[in-house]
Amino acid sequence: MQAVEDKIRTEGQVLPHNVLKVDNFLNHQIDPQLMYAIGEEFKRRFAGKKVTKILTVESSGIAPAVMAGLVMHVPVVFARKHKSLTLKDHLYTATVYSYTKHTSNQIAISKKFLHPDDSVLIIDDFLANGQAVEGLIEIIKAAQATLQGVGVVIEKTFQKGRQLLDERGIQTESLARIQAFEDGKIIFAEDKHEA
Amino acid sequence: MQAVEDKIRTEGQVLPHNVLKVDNFLNHQIDPQLMYAIGEEFKRRFAGKKVTKILTVESSGIAPAVMAGLVMHVPVVFARKHKSLTLKDHLYTATVYSYTKHTSNQIAISKKFLHPDDSVLIIDDFLANGQAVEGLIEIIKAAQATLQGVGVVIEKTFQKGRQLLDERGIQTESLARIQAFEDGKIIFAEDKHEA
Repeated sequence: MQAVEDKIRTEGQVLPHNVLKVDNFLNHQIDPQLMYAIGEEFKRRFAGKKVTKILTVESSGIAPAVMAGLVMHVPVVFARKHKSLTLKDHLYTATVYSYTKHTSNQIAISKKFLHPDDSVLIIDDFLANGQAVEGLIEIIKAAQATLQGVGVVIEKTFQKGRQLLDERGIQTESLARIQAFEDGKIIFAEDKHEA
Repeated sequence: MQAVEDKIRTEGQVLPHNVLKVDNFLNHQIDPQLMYAIGEEFKRRFAGKKVTKILTVESSGIAPAVMAGLVMHVPVVFARKHKSLTLKDHLYTATVYSYTKHTSNQIAISKKFLHPDDSVLIIDDFLANGQAVEGLIEIIKAAQATLQGVGVVIEKTFQKGRQLLDERGIQTESLARIQAFEDGKIIFAEDKHEA
């Protein structure tokens, strides 16, 4: 999606260890107009799928997910992150490891918001190693709901998340696909395709 | 705002210690259409004010804030919560005590997203004791920005948050004002006005 790539090119910041900082428009300051356009793009890409619910993880997934929910007219549920959980009878939970922060979190969704008749679209800000998405998929399975697809704003194609999803035949749509960082420059997957 | 009161009446759940659970549409599952209507209502109520930026706190403030940002065409910045912060030279921070959870958190906003020429609207899900809003106001002052008003989805008029804001002459707009919980029933402030 051109608008997302442009925004990353002009406002994204490449930090050491292949970390891309996009806190100007996605995960600290938010550009609501861009989020709305992102919601519309996800609707277009998953037009063939029946979706009854969108799932995401707090906090950075909420803005794109809620805009997708707005244009697709479905509720959004965001998983909460916890360091540890004691009372969890009423929750579906999964453990998510963060490679950036080197910590594990429990993510949790109340059982009352996910049912066997739900057709779920996962929306998140980043797809890198795919840990957050894996956690949500585990929760969707536990609820016996149906996964219809995964939509992410930014994908790092050189990390293993995409492969894990492709191997299971899950429709995965990324609005910007980053293939590499070279000397602080961002190389999009599409750039090389066009060459 | 009728739609918010109706939603609270039909889907809100009153728990012990005057806790109102609205995780069906606001702080776990989100109703995006209602959030959009809420954004429009905030725009209407603050129509006389110049707003260049909306501030909120993760995670439950993000959905109403980002919809207000969408209809008002301004960026949204959400403060991040931390148990503790070590490196904070580049951040504006404040300490926020939660009466519900009996814990303190640091909230933080990057200095690059708040400037002296910003006219700020604070949007949040709840106004009870006003601790989160107080923290955001402290940050706005530290940045020498201008506070234009506070918009909250649900206010508990019997807790001290409203009074703290009124005393300082801050325009505070709540879309549903809860005056009391009586035997598990929710009494709205407007109900009594109409009587």
